[in-house]
Amino acid sequence: MSVDLLRARAALSRLFEPSDMVGLALVSAAGPEQALQIATGGRQVSSALIHKTAGILTSVGVAGKGYALAEGLKRWRPRVADLAPDRDLETIRRLGGELLIPEDPRWPEALSHLELGMPLCLWVRGQLAGGLPDMKRTVALVGSRDATGYGLSITGDLSAGLASRGYTVVSGGAYGIDAQAHRAALAATLPEAAGSGISTIAVMACGADRFYPAGNEDLLRAIAEHGLLLSEVPPGSAPTRWRFLQRNRIIAALSAVTVVVEARWRSGALNTAHHAAELGREVGAVPGSVYSANSAGCHRLLRDGSAVCVTDAQEVAELAGPLTQEVPEVAQAVESASQSGPGSAARAREKRSDHDGLAVEDLLLLDALPVRSDTSIDKLASVAGLPVAGVRAGLARLELEGLAIRAGPDGWRRGKR
Amino acid sequence: MSVDLLRARAALSRLFEPSDMVGLALVSAAGPEQALQIATGGRQVSSALIHKTAGILTSVGVAGKGYALAEGLKRWRPRVADLAPDRDLETIRRLGGELLIPEDPRWPEALSHLELGMPLCLWVRGQLAGGLPDMKRTVALVGSRDATGYGLSITGDLSAGLASRGYTVVSGGAYGIDAQAHRAALAATLPEAAGSGISTIAVMACGADRFYPAGNEDLLRAIAEHGLLLSEVPPGSAPTRWRFLQRNRIIAALSAVTVVVEARWRSGALNTAHHAAELGREVGAVPGSVYSANSAGCHRLLRDGSAVCVTDAQEVAELAGPLTQEVPEVAQAVESASQSGPGSAARAREKRSDHDGLAVEDLLLLDALPVRSDTSIDKLASVAGLPVAGVRAGLARLELEGLAIRAGPDGWRRGKR
Repeated sequence: MSVDLLRARAALSRLFEPSDMVGLALVSAAGPEQALQIATGGRQVSSALIHKTAGILTSVGVAGKGYALAEGLKRWRPRVADLAPDRDLETIRRLGGELLIPEDPRWPEALSHLELGMPLCLWVRGQLAGGLPDMKRTVALVGSRDATGYGLSITGDLSAGLASRGYTVVSGGAYGIDAQAHRAALAATLPEAAGSGISTIAVMACGADRFYPAGNEDLLRAIAEHGLLLSEVPPGSAPTRWRFLQRNRIIAALSAVTVVVEARWRSGALNTAHHAAELGREVGAVPGSVYSANSAGCHRLLRDGSAVCVTDAQEVAELAGPLTQEVPEVAQAVESASQSGPGSAARAREKRSDHDGLAVEDLLLLDALPVRSDTSIDKLASVAGLPVAGVRAGLARLELEGLAIRAGPDGWRRGKR
Repeated sequence: MSVDLLRARAALSRLFEPSDMVGLALVSAAGPEQALQIATGGRQVSSALIHKTAGILTSVGVAGKGYALAEGLKRWRPRVADLAPDRDLETIRRLGGELLIPEDPRWPEALSHLELGMPLCLWVRGQLAGGLPDMKRTVALVGSRDATGYGLSITGDLSAGLASRGYTVVSGGAYGIDAQAHRAALAATLPEAAGSGISTIAVMACGADRFYPAGNEDLLRAIAEHGLLLSEVPPGSAPTRWRFLQRNRIIAALSAVTVVVEARWRSGALNTAHHAAELGREVGAVPGSVYSANSAGCHRLLRDGSAVCVTDAQEVAELAGPLTQEVPEVAQAVESASQSGPGSAARAREKRSDHDGLAVEDLLLLDALPVRSDTSIDKLASVAGLPVAGVRAGLARLELEGLAIRAGPDGWRRGKR
């Protein structure tokens, strides 16, 4: 892979804000190296290229007027003096990381679903040896920073359950739900399984050299060591609101499913969910109390049909679809041990009833059988509303099930299965 | 209306179990009076009638073999001796009630959607003067008997909110969610509004003369006095499992929306929801904790797409569609006072942020403005990634909003809206 390509994309990632569609169209039309020359004013832009760039913008629905590129050039000019791609590449290398670019075979295929909005590159720290995990085994867990105890609890259960099933948990490295998702995934990765997979990925809105927010420093350091920390903006970049919003599209694109665990009526997590829906990815939402403002955003997604209700790791895994890739044996063992998520517990508590699986006639007959006294077949026929022959046949069936007890030549009462 | 019709339907409702499709097909083919004569063995059944009955059964998808009617006759025979329609009619009259039959103009149109499964008649106690309320202003609230405090709380909020908006709340008169739904609807009916509408209807699985379960006697008595208590089975009938299941179809058919407030993974309330869905009625489910077994049934409905997520009375009312009928003024006043359900409270707590409604350029600029120091326009252009002219224009807009403060000839900092 050409060093010039790496340098060009490194520089462009500082010149352009994330999702600068004009810049991305220019790169698409001229290639990264020529685009950098043009964007920095080192090369005149031909009218053919202006036309081609405008065409690309029009094709993706961005108002692609002729002056879009001219506007872009004005926008990029003030940053040209700040460009130092070699320094940035050296910074990420010093941190044990590297710059991943679309020309690299390890570039995640899943990001190409962002089309023109695909990041220029990813500044990565962590265990990139085998590339990013397959989208099919990647799930995003997102939610509010000011999480409730309920939200933290279910996030821990979901994340641990998914990690132990062999899924990678993606989130945004923020306080609250994000931090809990990363933490539980890291903790669920057993020592024996270490190295067999990436349990968690944090996608940052700031440079990958910064641990932001500061309170998550230890956690983010652990992710950079045992998982992956990545960002489309170069080292030193500050986390701005725009970058937070754009960062969310990367979280959504990397994941087969995006689950919103807790979110207020208006929340950044909903933005991630919308990105996922736009990409045709599955969206899950965890229900909660209708009195909790932190679940209002989840209920909003459920209500408008944008999300599927998920209550445990198994249901999230079902949304992600079957795992085609091989799951390590250790993870399989953990999986079978951890089948008892909250939802499955609720189901398991439901015990089988006497009347389960009975045909209508037998149900009518069972209800007509007295518990504490005996009754005759004629009386049963009248009470149950069944023919006498039907009562005889039904009593034989119920007797086999232990639900009817013969108490004499013509006397019957109810039994207990 | 013919007394013979009343007597025939009264007798048939004792002879047939609810939803005895063969019996109902016979009534449909021969009319109630002739059907009674045949069902009681007082009249031979012609081969033409056998054919017609079988045809009706086939048309509704019930296996309509030729011997279906013969089987029915055997089933009904044991009950013939128990028939006493005059006594039953006298009983309901003595209780201040009456027998409502499909030939009565007050018969609710909504029940005809049950087609062949429409009840033969309804044994009614209560305020029937103006007939049953329009389906469009009727909502069913159903759920577990062993409700949690959470379930009771939201049921009370929903029911009171709906009743004060002019809706009639239908339920099954059972313990738990049902009882709370009836109670809150009765309580929400202000004295001034009394008589203007029926706040609640209990559909019973036993005879309307019985207050079952006994612990709800006072409540059911109040419903029979101020609302409506109804049943398709005649006075004296016991509540059997079959009758509970069939009763649910009446609850669903009478209501524009069926809301499951709390239900276990397997619950009778889900049966009501399925009836509602089969009738093409709206189904709502209230979300709750994923750790609560009592919400597992609701989440199941949300997950498989059978129900819409509802969190307050307003959302339920939206499902029911706009009220065409006139709402009493008192109810309107209460309505506007009670707009603050749980869901709306969660939304209201969300306050407007500084960056709301800003265009992307202004968002980038706002994030680039320092809070505690001043900065220059050139620096802002580089940090925000905007052209210098764009920064000037943006600062002017943000200054108008109070979000940017001029701190000298070329110095700017952030303001607070």
